[in-house]
Amino acid sequence: MIGAGQLARMTCQAAPSLGIGFRVLAGAADESAAQVCAQTRLGDYRSLDDLREFAIGCDVVTFDHEHVPGAHLLALQQAGVRVRPGPAALRHAQDKQELRDQLAKLGMACPRFAPVAGPGEVSGFAEVAGWPVVLKAVTGGYDGRGVWVCESPDQADAVLETGVKLIAEEYVAFDRELAVLVARSPSGQAAVYPVVQTVQVDGICREVLAPAPGLAEASAIEAQRLGVAIAAGLGVTGLLAVELFETADGLLVNELAMRPHNSGHWTIEGARTSQFEQHLRAVLDLPLGAPTMAAGGAVMVNVLGGADPDLRSRLTHVMAADPAVKVHLYGKTVRPGRKVGHVTALGDDMAAAAGRARRAASYLSTGAEQ
Amino acid sequence: MIGAGQLARMTCQAAPSLGIGFRVLAGAADESAAQVCAQTRLGDYRSLDDLREFAIGCDVVTFDHEHVPGAHLLALQQAGVRVRPGPAALRHAQDKQELRDQLAKLGMACPRFAPVAGPGEVSGFAEVAGWPVVLKAVTGGYDGRGVWVCESPDQADAVLETGVKLIAEEYVAFDRELAVLVARSPSGQAAVYPVVQTVQVDGICREVLAPAPGLAEASAIEAQRLGVAIAAGLGVTGLLAVELFETADGLLVNELAMRPHNSGHWTIEGARTSQFEQHLRAVLDLPLGAPTMAAGGAVMVNVLGGADPDLRSRLTHVMAADPAVKVHLYGKTVRPGRKVGHVTALGDDMAAAAGRARRAASYLSTGAEQ
Repeated sequence: MIGAGQLARMTCQAAPSLGIGFRVLAGAADESAAQVCAQTRLGDYRSLDDLREFAIGCDVVTFDHEHVPGAHLLALQQAGVRVRPGPAALRHAQDKQELRDQLAKLGMACPRFAPVAGPGEVSGFAEVAGWPVVLKAVTGGYDGRGVWVCESPDQADAVLETGVKLIAEEYVAFDRELAVLVARSPSGQAAVYPVVQTVQVDGICREVLAPAPGLAEASAIEAQRLGVAIAAGLGVTGLLAVELFETADGLLVNELAMRPHNSGHWTIEGARTSQFEQHLRAVLDLPLGAPTMAAGGAVMVNVLGGADPDLRSRLTHVMAADPAVKVHLYGKTVRPGRKVGHVTALGDDMAAAAGRARRAASYLSTGAEQ
Repeated sequence: MIGAGQLARMTCQAAPSLGIGFRVLAGAADESAAQVCAQTRLGDYRSLDDLREFAIGCDVVTFDHEHVPGAHLLALQQAGVRVRPGPAALRHAQDKQELRDQLAKLGMACPRFAPVAGPGEVSGFAEVAGWPVVLKAVTGGYDGRGVWVCESPDQADAVLETGVKLIAEEYVAFDRELAVLVARSPSGQAAVYPVVQTVQVDGICREVLAPAPGLAEASAIEAQRLGVAIAAGLGVTGLLAVELFETADGLLVNELAMRPHNSGHWTIEGARTSQFEQHLRAVLDLPLGAPTMAAGGAVMVNVLGGADPDLRSRLTHVMAADPAVKVHLYGKTVRPGRKVGHVTALGDDMAAAAGRARRAASYLSTGAEQ
């Protein structure tokens, strides 16, 4: 796995059970996955030499982020390395213009969009779609970075002046956000998890409720159908996470990612097969695991860094206060607002589970109960 | 953790979630846990120098087996190393005579027993307890090794001639075998898992049903009470597994172990806190996790090596045949009869879960369905 963040760390925890040898390419020995992986290699994912060296002896190369340059992925593939997802699929997670164009071709409902290169084009787009306009960097954005909600031409101009290549999207007044997680193998087998509700604040996922409370069965089926169709349509191998807007007029595709995803962390305890095991099965073309719920409901809340870097003493209190809440720490230095872990609570009563998970996450973050 | 077998391997998988740095002392780099642990140290658990070197920088030292010499444990402890469980507790898992004497003092119901040093003593014991007589090596036995069921004086003589230090035990005509798993922390907090039924063949655990089907509530409570009392009475820190005989006259204590135990592998998916996470919490004096069931029932079946060493191709078929069965491989070279992995099936219908787990394990072992 290229990249050694928390996604690689949790994939590393899943690999031994299936007898899978697991190696990560880390930028530094103190990265999240590098701390716990027996086969950490140090190198730069932007260096083709480092990637080539890393791939020697790997049956399959996969990713914990989407930032490996597409040209390098192609070069690896041409050299006979099994890259999953492959560069042809992955560019849709790397380039928002490519993504929108391809989703439109596949007939998927999306927010209105257009490439924009100057002030006139944003205003032209706003005449059709209205203000505010969402400007997104075509490449390189994540966790809210590279996304600007512009209320006026002046605000749009300020973004345009940065010189970043942009796409404009309609601002969607959604009821809530949903996500659907699909695994697809090179053989074409697909498995889809129950649709979840995600709660984002400032572009960062804060919590995930699985399954999405009160979701109409027809909408759940539609979301799952969308996910499977996009995975097949884009030729994804491994995991595909599709973020959706639920609106009065139906579901719209917002973003996607081709890797284990924050919206799927609940699956570690909440589903029969965790997304990390599932990703390994999928990229290795092993039969996929059951994506069914392992509990009535699961609520995952991210632990964001607070002012006090000492998580450990607060962890003790969280463990004592709720012996059944599941804590996952990422081994990262605490910085305010940084994702340093997550907690999951399970149970048939979703409101109770949400309360427990929020309390534990809040206490780990700040020492105060929410 | 001293020792790098499958117990250390699965503990290693649990450690990152709680932000626990985990190091193993392995005899060789290809041992089960050494393959997956980022902090493997090579050394000999019988060497005090190696143990001292290993312990430097560890908050706590614990074990995946009971074979570290007691004198070494004492020396470590006297040098200020936190050894958990400590040598005073651990000798009861190392010396069957010590164990029986102490259990008798604690008032625990056990099979009749006596130290035996020669043919006359075995016959004398048999006059009271009857034939067959079970002879056990006082130290060093596990997985059926060091246990001999003798039907006659001649058979006993053959064992006595080996010169091994022995204890004689009454042969118990039990209805079935049960096990209870308790965690106890240095602060004295205890958590006890649901009582399970174990099925042993030739002294090796073959399968575990959790909770024990049809167990009377009074017996379950009695078994849990026994487990907690023994943990406290022996001063155990970490996990204590107590193997019990269920007989028409009640429960008898058979064996015990002070570490994660084969009878607790089902907890990885079947309980809210796995025994591996629980052991880490206990030895680090962190609040213990909930030992409650995470499913209606769980059945664990060991995968024993068969004639064909190629597990991998059979694994694919098992995954395809049952997407919900959980497979755990230990990375061990396959040898006939060797524990090389286990599978767990979950569900409300215990008979159905048992059928699934047996089928998967049998297929992994031999390529044939049972």
